[in-house]
Amino acid sequence: MASNNKSHVVGVDLGGTKILAGVFDADLSLIGKSKKSTKAKRGVEAVIDRIARCVLDAIDECDLKPEDVRGVGIGAPGATDPESGTVIFAPNLEWRDIPLKAALEKALKVPVFIENDCNIQALGVHEKELKGGPRHLVGIFLGTGIGAGVVVNGELYSGFNRTAGEIGHMVLDVNGPKCACGNKGCFEALASRTAIFKRVLGAVKDGQKTLLTEMLGPGLKDMRSGDLRKAIKKGDKFVQKVVEDAAAFTGIAVANVINFLNPEVVVLGGGVMQALEDQMLEIVVRNARQYAMSGVDKGIQILASTLGDDAGITGGAVLARRQTRQA
Amino acid sequence: MASNNKSHVVGVDLGGTKILAGVFDADLSLIGKSKKSTKAKRGVEAVIDRIARCVLDAIDECDLKPEDVRGVGIGAPGATDPESGTVIFAPNLEWRDIPLKAALEKALKVPVFIENDCNIQALGVHEKELKGGPRHLVGIFLGTGIGAGVVVNGELYSGFNRTAGEIGHMVLDVNGPKCACGNKGCFEALASRTAIFKRVLGAVKDGQKTLLTEMLGPGLKDMRSGDLRKAIKKGDKFVQKVVEDAAAFTGIAVANVINFLNPEVVVLGGGVMQALEDQMLEIVVRNARQYAMSGVDKGIQILASTLGDDAGITGGAVLARRQTRQA
Repeated sequence: MASNNKSHVVGVDLGGTKILAGVFDADLSLIGKSKKSTKAKRGVEAVIDRIARCVLDAIDECDLKPEDVRGVGIGAPGATDPESGTVIFAPNLEWRDIPLKAALEKALKVPVFIENDCNIQALGVHEKELKGGPRHLVGIFLGTGIGAGVVVNGELYSGFNRTAGEIGHMVLDVNGPKCACGNKGCFEALASRTAIFKRVLGAVKDGQKTLLTEMLGPGLKDMRSGDLRKAIKKGDKFVQKVVEDAAAFTGIAVANVINFLNPEVVVLGGGVMQALEDQMLEIVVRNARQYAMSGVDKGIQILASTLGDDAGITGGAVLARRQTRQA
Repeated sequence: MASNNKSHVVGVDLGGTKILAGVFDADLSLIGKSKKSTKAKRGVEAVIDRIARCVLDAIDECDLKPEDVRGVGIGAPGATDPESGTVIFAPNLEWRDIPLKAALEKALKVPVFIENDCNIQALGVHEKELKGGPRHLVGIFLGTGIGAGVVVNGELYSGFNRTAGEIGHMVLDVNGPKCACGNKGCFEALASRTAIFKRVLGAVKDGQKTLLTEMLGPGLKDMRSGDLRKAIKKGDKFVQKVVEDAAAFTGIAVANVINFLNPEVVVLGGGVMQALEDQMLEIVVRNARQYAMSGVDKGIQILASTLGDDAGITGGAVLARRQTRQA
């Protein structure tokens, strides 16, 4: 499958725990990928070295060489400045003002482009999954935290400080549970994996019975979103209620977005949505329609992304393609 | 002051209770205006006739003739389709699919352009008050209801169904007071004039003492936002608390906007803000900064519009100018 033309691009999803790199061909088909743990605690240089090796592994996996690659697009978990190629602030990595683009270009000898991870996922969904169709799109990604990417007039929108899409801290329930940010009732404190797990653990501590303790032991060690799905499928009403409440709040957040920004499509993604789509999506859509103003949501699609874990690398590939497109 | 060139434009603010028309010169200075009650109950044709007469009165007031006017821009209270010139839905007027542009052009023999009233106010603030400076701006207008206008990349953004900016139905307190839309805890149910008055009237009914009853009688007949300001200035702690609570929720809504859309400027306007700026603005800003994610609001301005009642007609004039600009 070796190829000598420069039609290939690499997308990278840089997360707090893992790095994923994927090689895409001219049709934006994923032809090979590679994965590494991030090891953020080893420091910035070590992580950048790991990203470079992950990219090279993925390229090698496809029997390609770096010189066959047109560009690398990378999504970083925080505020980024695509023009200077800097990660301004990435709390999970404890990074501030890291010139990621320059460092990776030096290591890889290939043009590198960076963006915020949620923006890049939204871009991937927009171009690969929806074929670039919607003029305005909001992608909402539910994982450890919650973030969004915004596409306006077919282009990524990043706002004044390049931080647009921080929907995780949209207040939905001013008297609701405390959020890590210090406020109360943020979307993220109601529907992220962190919030869901916290509620489950708290209830178990207070004596709540659940199949999860049978599955994982009394401490619920290494609990994952998929465990919640399994428990619900086995009839665990408590877990079902917790997940349904998170879905209900997600629906309200979607309605807030529809009322305010009126995008053509709202896409839901991220690990929580991927693991619990069957348990959550219907409730999200029902609540979004109920809380959207009458008529305002007409014709607007609300759907779950099918890209799953590959949304980030796909978006990275789209970014690299767009940035290296010949005029 | 008569002029024969076509540098003049007219802006019209069509509201549920009154129609305001203003004539603006080449420098976008307001040189004369006219006002009429809307009389929506008399039906669509009567209202359109009243708008036309209001425009002609304003023009006559400036010793001009309709043929001296380059265009008329009008803000309507509801969803509009600027391309077809139709008011799609205006609940306060009970209008559906009214071809307002065509009807007014027939009556006035001048090009007419229509937009949503909050959009047009945001446009007026953007171009006249802020000299077109901010790339991205959100204007939030607190009156009988609450709406917003969104400017992205210097242009009005209206979304898929042309209804963007319906921030009044952004849920902030999911267990909060009932909203007219059927849901609970919408911004409009917490901070609009309607919400503030409802809370005051309910408390008075339950025996709350307030200077407002001394000022207006026990039924609080014809209460206006300015009466609240007067009561607060005289030391009415109850009214102060009600207004401060509305301001606090407004601050949370501003933070939600800053977190999600990250505009360069958030402008607050509308009758409530105009009457109670001294009592509300500081609290709005403080809460907005507290609820905005750390760093995300850096450099973002939050301010009250100085255009007051003239925001609508100013925006109408800006719209007419933009639409009739020679290429």
